[in-house]
Amino acid sequence: MAGHRRRRTPAGAGRRPGQPRTAHRLGGVERVTLLAGGVGGARLAHGLDLALRPSDEPMPISGNPAPRHPLTVVVNVGDDTELHGLWISPDIDTVLYTLAELNDEERGWGLRGETYATLEQLARLGEDTWFTLGDLDLATHIVRTARLRSGSPLSAVTSQIAESLGVRPRILPVTDDSLATMVDTPSGRLGFQEYFVGHQHSDEVLGLHFEGAEATRPAPGVVDALREAELVLLAPSNPFLSIDPVLAVPGVRDALTGTAARRVAVSPIVGGAAIKGPAAQILESLGHEVSALGVARLYTELADVMCIDERDAHLSGPIADLGFEVLVTDTIMGGPDGRERLARELLGLGT
Amino acid sequence: MAGHRRRRTPAGAGRRPGQPRTAHRLGGVERVTLLAGGVGGARLAHGLDLALRPSDEPMPISGNPAPRHPLTVVVNVGDDTELHGLWISPDIDTVLYTLAELNDEERGWGLRGETYATLEQLARLGEDTWFTLGDLDLATHIVRTARLRSGSPLSAVTSQIAESLGVRPRILPVTDDSLATMVDTPSGRLGFQEYFVGHQHSDEVLGLHFEGAEATRPAPGVVDALREAELVLLAPSNPFLSIDPVLAVPGVRDALTGTAARRVAVSPIVGGAAIKGPAAQILESLGHEVSALGVARLYTELADVMCIDERDAHLSGPIADLGFEVLVTDTIMGGPDGRERLARELLGLGT
Repeated sequence: MAGHRRRRTPAGAGRRPGQPRTAHRLGGVERVTLLAGGVGGARLAHGLDLALRPSDEPMPISGNPAPRHPLTVVVNVGDDTELHGLWISPDIDTVLYTLAELNDEERGWGLRGETYATLEQLARLGEDTWFTLGDLDLATHIVRTARLRSGSPLSAVTSQIAESLGVRPRILPVTDDSLATMVDTPSGRLGFQEYFVGHQHSDEVLGLHFEGAEATRPAPGVVDALREAELVLLAPSNPFLSIDPVLAVPGVRDALTGTAARRVAVSPIVGGAAIKGPAAQILESLGHEVSALGVARLYTELADVMCIDERDAHLSGPIADLGFEVLVTDTIMGGPDGRERLARELLGLGT
Repeated sequence: MAGHRRRRTPAGAGRRPGQPRTAHRLGGVERVTLLAGGVGGARLAHGLDLALRPSDEPMPISGNPAPRHPLTVVVNVGDDTELHGLWISPDIDTVLYTLAELNDEERGWGLRGETYATLEQLARLGEDTWFTLGDLDLATHIVRTARLRSGSPLSAVTSQIAESLGVRPRILPVTDDSLATMVDTPSGRLGFQEYFVGHQHSDEVLGLHFEGAEATRPAPGVVDALREAELVLLAPSNPFLSIDPVLAVPGVRDALTGTAARRVAVSPIVGGAAIKGPAAQILESLGHEVSALGVARLYTELADVMCIDERDAHLSGPIADLGFEVLVTDTIMGGPDGRERLARELLGLGT
């Protein structure tokens, strides 16, 4: 089991010679890598960014590039899709918008103050507009598509957009290659967005397939971000729809199972229900227990610590029996304060 | 000269056997073809559409396709450009929007009620936004680009968009191939939009070059629209920037000089000035007289009739001396009524 298999190394052991510990020892950890899907991953990334922001941070000096931020977020691209000829990366955008504090917190997705003039006109022009795209959001897709078509890889384009939006952590798509999450349902195999948005994730999920995954390579920096981290976090994202497609990229699972970093998974199931999305239904339809324990059973090879919500404290024993250390805390990240508090607790596990 | 060279044929001589004359004999002419650039061409097209609309027009019966509209507009594509990875066809859009009565009459370009959320966000994402693109307008460019990339030719895409917008006349790009108007100026050769929008057409024009024109073919229907017309109109568009690039597509000039139709050019110069745009400056810098007479001298091979404004009535004699019939009328198409009135006068020349 994970707890026994792991080589434990002191925090900071992976630090390169000559690399100062103090300069960016923000929040006590220098290198944190978060594997993330959409909303849950974005909220935790936001908490980590807040927690890692030093109170006495100097203003960046122009011409003097800022040192690398301690947080790297490796993001799922299995939900990516092309609509109206534009390349949409929903999870990357949710992470970017949330870190840029431009996201619509109330609705849970998209940008604050969004308008829909283009989408309404697209409908008038005969386009199928089942997928809601706002005017502000479209700018991201237009820029991404133009830069991808001009030959830039998704990781470089993501990095440019992040910089334009003032996002400080490093955001990496897990791969620059094409990987499409396909959902097997009683009515056949559906593309992810068709299942998720088109059918509003109401179909029973019989299985998942990550089309093209075997031919993908990790984006530059992904494997190193896992190998060289002090702390690796699995976001409270859907294990099947967000974490699995990240691990389906050859080399990523090995980097996660082989890292010297402490690995902490935050359960997306609280009190027997998903915080958001179809995780509960999918756990059930694939024959797993719909609980933090059911999630822990999926992660025995992938994490050393399971972080579960206070409401699930009674599951600590059975989860510990699987070989995990267990952190019991408030995992519901309502606002920025809750996010930062959870992030600080998680970062505490890395030091 | 043109007036002597022309074979005059009775109106309707080009009618196919079995084609009823009465059914679509709207406004007295069955087949009118207009060569057009942007605003001037769009306004005349609108006037023609209004004039050709029968008062007792039956509602179209679904499943029973409407007969072809008597008006075909052949539109310049030399101003087309790619911005943010999207394909922009400014003249086609001006014609489409004006015929759909969606255009912003006051401003003279673009759509009424336009907003700019996407453009502002594109600027935040580091894009160069010197070219104004509204949210509604962007829908056209997104749809056009997606359909072009999926393999549809520009003419088919234009026809689909026209249908979606309820535009009845047939709108044809002069070619489905790439043709780029380049402007030679004292500061070098500029792309058209760089000259026109970027530099606000302030540079002296030393010459025009239609890049790629020699390799283009007329779009399907263009040559027939000229050959089979009863009446061909040259819109009051810029002779150098709008009409010349249309004629630069191999086969189009021959179709215009060889048609049996009566050919009427409307002068874009009134009282020694252009109604809109840089036509006057370009006439001058290229050594032509800035007047309806200067324009007539450019059109001796291309038109049989010159339509000039009342303010230029004194030029009737010199223009007639070039071999033209001359129609003197109010050519300023302020509102729909003025357009329709001018259109009716021009249509009267075709019967």
